[in-house]
Amino acid sequence: MASSSSLTLSQAILARAISHHGSNPSSDRVSLSTLTIPTFSGLKSSSSAAAATSSSKPRRRVNLTRPIRAAAVETLDKTTETSLVEKSVNTIRFLAIDAVEKANSGHPGLPMGCAPMGHILYDEIMRYNPKNPYWFNRDRFVLSAGHGCMLQYALLHLAGYDSVREEDLKSFRQWGSKTPGHPENFETPGIEVTTGPLGQGIANAVGLALAEKHLAARYNKPDSEIVDHYTYVILGDGCQMEGIANEAASLAGHWGLGKLIAFYDDNHISIDGDTEIAFTENVDKRFEGLGWHVIWVKNGNTGYDEIRAAIKEAKAVTDKPTLIKVTTTIGYGSPNKANSYSVHGSALGAKEVDATRKNLGWPFEPFHVPEDVKKHWSRHVPDGAALEAEWNAKFAEYGKKYSEEASELKSIINGELPAGWEKALPTYTPESPADATRNLSQQNLNALAKVLPGLLGGSADLASSNMTLLKQFGDFQKDTPEERNVRFGVREHGMGAICNGIALHSPGLIPYCATFFVFTDYMRAAIRISALSEAGVIYVMTHDSIGLGEDGPTHQPIEHLASFRAMPNILMLRPADGNETAGAYKVAVINRKRPSILALSRQKLPQLAGTSIEGVEKGGYTISDNSSGNKPDVILIGTGSELEIAAKAAEELRKEGKAVRVVSFVSWELFDEQSDAYKESVLPAAVTARVSIEAGSTFGWEKIIGSKGKAIGIDHFGASAPAGKIYKEFGITAEAVVAAAKELL
Amino acid sequence: MASSSSLTLSQAILARAISHHGSNPSSDRVSLSTLTIPTFSGLKSSSSAAAATSSSKPRRRVNLTRPIRAAAVETLDKTTETSLVEKSVNTIRFLAIDAVEKANSGHPGLPMGCAPMGHILYDEIMRYNPKNPYWFNRDRFVLSAGHGCMLQYALLHLAGYDSVREEDLKSFRQWGSKTPGHPENFETPGIEVTTGPLGQGIANAVGLALAEKHLAARYNKPDSEIVDHYTYVILGDGCQMEGIANEAASLAGHWGLGKLIAFYDDNHISIDGDTEIAFTENVDKRFEGLGWHVIWVKNGNTGYDEIRAAIKEAKAVTDKPTLIKVTTTIGYGSPNKANSYSVHGSALGAKEVDATRKNLGWPFEPFHVPEDVKKHWSRHVPDGAALEAEWNAKFAEYGKKYSEEASELKSIINGELPAGWEKALPTYTPESPADATRNLSQQNLNALAKVLPGLLGGSADLASSNMTLLKQFGDFQKDTPEERNVRFGVREHGMGAICNGIALHSPGLIPYCATFFVFTDYMRAAIRISALSEAGVIYVMTHDSIGLGEDGPTHQPIEHLASFRAMPNILMLRPADGNETAGAYKVAVINRKRPSILALSRQKLPQLAGTSIEGVEKGGYTISDNSSGNKPDVILIGTGSELEIAAKAAEELRKEGKAVRVVSFVSWELFDEQSDAYKESVLPAAVTARVSIEAGSTFGWEKIIGSKGKAIGIDHFGASAPAGKIYKEFGITAEAVVAAAKELL
Repeated sequence: MASSSSLTLSQAILARAISHHGSNPSSDRVSLSTLTIPTFSGLKSSSSAAAATSSSKPRRRVNLTRPIRAAAVETLDKTTETSLVEKSVNTIRFLAIDAVEKANSGHPGLPMGCAPMGHILYDEIMRYNPKNPYWFNRDRFVLSAGHGCMLQYALLHLAGYDSVREEDLKSFRQWGSKTPGHPENFETPGIEVTTGPLGQGIANAVGLALAEKHLAARYNKPDSEIVDHYTYVILGDGCQMEGIANEAASLAGHWGLGKLIAFYDDNHISIDGDTEIAFTENVDKRFEGLGWHVIWVKNGNTGYDEIRAAIKEAKAVTDKPTLIKVTTTIGYGSPNKANSYSVHGSALGAKEVDATRKNLGWPFEPFHVPEDVKKHWSRHVPDGAALEAEWNAKFAEYGKKYSEEASELKSIINGELPAGWEKALPTYTPESPADATRNLSQQNLNALAKVLPGLLGGSADLASSNMTLLKQFGDFQKDTPEERNVRFGVREHGMGAICNGIALHSPGLIPYCATFFVFTDYMRAAIRISALSEAGVIYVMTHDSIGLGEDGPTHQPIEHLASFRAMPNILMLRPADGNETAGAYKVAVINRKRPSILALSRQKLPQLAGTSIEGVEKGGYTISDNSSGNKPDVILIGTGSELEIAAKAAEELRKEGKAVRVVSFVSWELFDEQSDAYKESVLPAAVTARVSIEAGSTFGWEKIIGSKGKAIGIDHFGASAPAGKIYKEFGITAEAVVAAAKELL
Repeated sequence: MASSSSLTLSQAILARAISHHGSNPSSDRVSLSTLTIPTFSGLKSSSSAAAATSSSKPRRRVNLTRPIRAAAVETLDKTTETSLVEKSVNTIRFLAIDAVEKANSGHPGLPMGCAPMGHILYDEIMRYNPKNPYWFNRDRFVLSAGHGCMLQYALLHLAGYDSVREEDLKSFRQWGSKTPGHPENFETPGIEVTTGPLGQGIANAVGLALAEKHLAARYNKPDSEIVDHYTYVILGDGCQMEGIANEAASLAGHWGLGKLIAFYDDNHISIDGDTEIAFTENVDKRFEGLGWHVIWVKNGNTGYDEIRAAIKEAKAVTDKPTLIKVTTTIGYGSPNKANSYSVHGSALGAKEVDATRKNLGWPFEPFHVPEDVKKHWSRHVPDGAALEAEWNAKFAEYGKKYSEEASELKSIINGELPAGWEKALPTYTPESPADATRNLSQQNLNALAKVLPGLLGGSADLASSNMTLLKQFGDFQKDTPEERNVRFGVREHGMGAICNGIALHSPGLIPYCATFFVFTDYMRAAIRISALSEAGVIYVMTHDSIGLGEDGPTHQPIEHLASFRAMPNILMLRPADGNETAGAYKVAVINRKRPSILALSRQKLPQLAGTSIEGVEKGGYTISDNSSGNKPDVILIGTGSELEIAAKAAEELRKEGKAVRVVSFVSWELFDEQSDAYKESVLPAAVTARVSIEAGSTFGWEKIIGSKGKAIGIDHFGASAPAGKIYKEFGITAEAVVAAAKELL
């Protein structure tokens, strides 16, 4: 460094930062005379918030001439000239350092570098109620760089969330704690979504912002902005490199999500070292190309006013999302490890923790929150309660004027399904026309959209193939955000993660998304997060087998059913006809904390006798049987498009005098949950002659058919030809089932 | 349209195009006086190519004053003024139209719009030998928009490839044909990679271009550019939307892949309609941000000279990849369907085919190639043979001067592994120190890099966690392309697809790539293409279970082993210690047409007695046994880090007098391939008391343990805590194995 003093880089930066304070903060972006920044006085924000009619209107105003001073309590010699803001920022840093140190595991670098923006967001900008993390109109925050979760835990702790008490910080990354190694919405109230896998969070944030824009367009009135919040996100270099982030950012720009504000922690360090080794693109230019407003905060370490001004500017741009590139030093404050990968993902070590304490002038014990910092943050509990109470009053007023809208919005907020909604599901008889389950799916989606106000979704550029258009609605677009058909483009991964964000925005939002089943491979990471984070997304996956025909093996799923049956907390449903498709939707809608995948056919299928919605709810059930005493000669088991084949084979065998049961195995997970007695009634242990047929991998079928059964399936890739030809060549036929059954009899 | 005539849009465009010909083609980019474009004279390109010393040097030179005339044969009144180029272009269009029509399935729109650039590439620019599609120094072409494969089939057909004869075109998308619904390298010589899943192809092309740059840097000499080819790719709007394309493009820009030239078919139509509904970003700006040179060809329908000039400009930029945005009309020539989604993915229908024939002045029977077009293209067979012969002579000269390099390069070209390479694999005894298999993996990689000249690879920003650095080499970078450590950044999906490109560039290139096992979810689509396209990529996947500890459930694989065991043509290997890791690498290296995934531990594991490389090659084998007569009381089966637990449980049970066999089940696929006698020797049918233990989903284990066995595993998500604690809490312990065994005894 050019500095001639013996100070370390970090000390020098700190010293400069300190000397800045009290004098005019440098800013080349906004005139200071007009700068509006939050106060630290604990001024109730509710009144100004109530007065706000424009989303870009500042919520708090501070007289810049009033000096910002640290309180006297616990102020030590070394920090007398440090402002309370810096003390709070250092509190955040050391809570992260100490928790990682105690766990001897974790990522201190990001919290140390992002503490300033974190502080400003949670202390000055965001509106939330710590005692009700689920208050509907709260601002949402997503830490897309989830490994830095100690930043968020520290902030939740300071803000007064009950989920992160001191003992929780002390049990960071330990068994049963509320502070796991990455942020998990299902463990820690105050965490909106589950992040860690990079790039997911920024896409979730796009979904959260989409949900806000959509609900605001549907429910806000000229005299009442009942839906009005921002979505903030911090993402790092790692998120930026992931393709999913580009997909989601492209859509955010397309949709003009003006209330999405993303902080890009531009610290130039990733696990392998300097980003120069793999990441030299011009991110600003890319985001401008994606339709974002881009701001660069050059000093993210101590440039508090720069950060504040950037947020103000971002809010003023209402037709575009904003990326605030904040250049920071990873591990800021650590004299020997800052600005290196070594501070990214390991504890600093006792020696370096000491050195950092000395460097930042932090004489406190581990996990200590100075009284003045504590007192300063304490206002968020009453302020948050006031914000919510105020909103509740506003909502009550709203309800008086707009009772229908209020009631609908309420159901979206609390997730209560309208009474009798399931009556909307269509039913079919064997006389109903044969149809592809993808078409039957569309009948269900359109029927449900009429009764479920929170149902919205779309396809990754395959709406006309996936049959997902809601006919009574238009497209959700920048200028028509009240509509419910979402056009995701060919961005499967982003689509899934955006739907996770929508689902986790409000319990009553029921997002669905669609592509060809084989392309779940593109979005598997997002689907897994649906399952883990209990986001009840409905995945409408058509063209579910070789039955799609000529597109060939690149498009024909083989192992996909098995791969999702193995995934925890997700329902893999493969309906065979109209009634089963309706049943699959019933299950999918009810399961709000468990995503569902519906595997649907491209090809026409007959409406089968014996299928039912109730049967689907049990996962596996008998659709026909000519045996008695629960002792069939053979049980034929099929799913989806192959249930028809099993039924045909049964007819053949019955002609020959056999007692044959045909079982539809539409969802293994639901069958697993049934009672032993029910299972025995469908698959009696004594009947080992079992044949399964499914146009996919036989992997896993031994569980159902037992060691003596026969599984007919496809354990190699598909082929390009008309569907009927492929079925025949691959032996997915009634003849094969009959032959297999005869071998077992 | 502004045109006042009664012509359709397509007719009008065609008329304008015709009127352009013979006059000065408009071009605002290059001066025509200096424009060098290929000739149609059939001039042998070999001599000029031999003289070329710079890759950007034009290969053929044409006197622009010489009129280009169609041959007289079969020239009909309507086309007398149409140049042979246009006739060839229309031949391509109608071969596509006719094949799709006959199949009544396929995608005519792209070939109709991209025929001009396709013609120019295959007829004027690319160097290849139709009779040897595998000639090493050929230019590579990738149709990333794989659904438009009839474009490439038509081009291969015209160029004289034996793989696409007229009968193949007539059996487009039919069972057993060489012309499947999407391009498949393993079906059709002349197709480099398998595309269709969007975005994969452009990433494959980055891998192909990386391979060229790497090999050129290693083997070219000042007096002999023995490696010297371009990689061309056509991608569409769909590819552009996919995140993987952005990942790969970012790396291509970072690496400065100057010989990668991508044509972006900018036709503004995707399946759901106009790209305006979901794709309004500024692609040019994004690519400039990614470090690409960007050129816009405004008239891709008839602007032949514009396209030629763009290619010339692209070649002149040697330090950056080039994106040529070519604005085209999808379905160009179809009077009623051009420029609409209806022409994207369905046959035109007889009526519209007739209208298009009329519109483009095409009186020929389906599948007809006019004699003059045929004659014109016929030169590529002798020219290609000459190119290869010339290169062979050059290589012979090269070999005389640089015998060592020549011999090494030859082994990369023909894929022959050096004799005795496997002796480099390390071996271990039970006394060898305990170690994590990720560290043992690094020992193997470094040992193999010394003997396998084609081994190169790296990690998605986790090199120091995945332990994948080759210590004797530096980083493959823009200015050090001869090095073999590839830094992919946090771009798993792009990484996998790039490795597919590397693997399919030359049989002797053995790419490996790495991330945490759970993040195979990000790259699953690319891994599936490895399996389908027979690309022997080695996937080094560490942190393979809850054993990674504190990072928690977002990072802990559960269902991943099962999900890959279900995937066709891939080896899922989970070694338990040093010998098994060496065995896994032996298998992975040998299997050049089947990718391998190595699941490796973060945590230390002991070197077990009884493990061996030979055992791994059989997939499942006995590591210890105190029974006799192939009749153990119980068989304990483990994989990877849980084999140790099985061995410990066996000790306990043996102390109690039980006859216990311990089986390592490192690869289910390899075990499946063994003889029945061998299988019986390991898992005798008579012994139904079997306990499996694996820290992952139990899904599928019934196949191994039978209906009466017990599977110990984890059928829910993981947790954030120290690894030992999670193992204990989840019951992945020797005690649990002992208890399960006792229940069965």
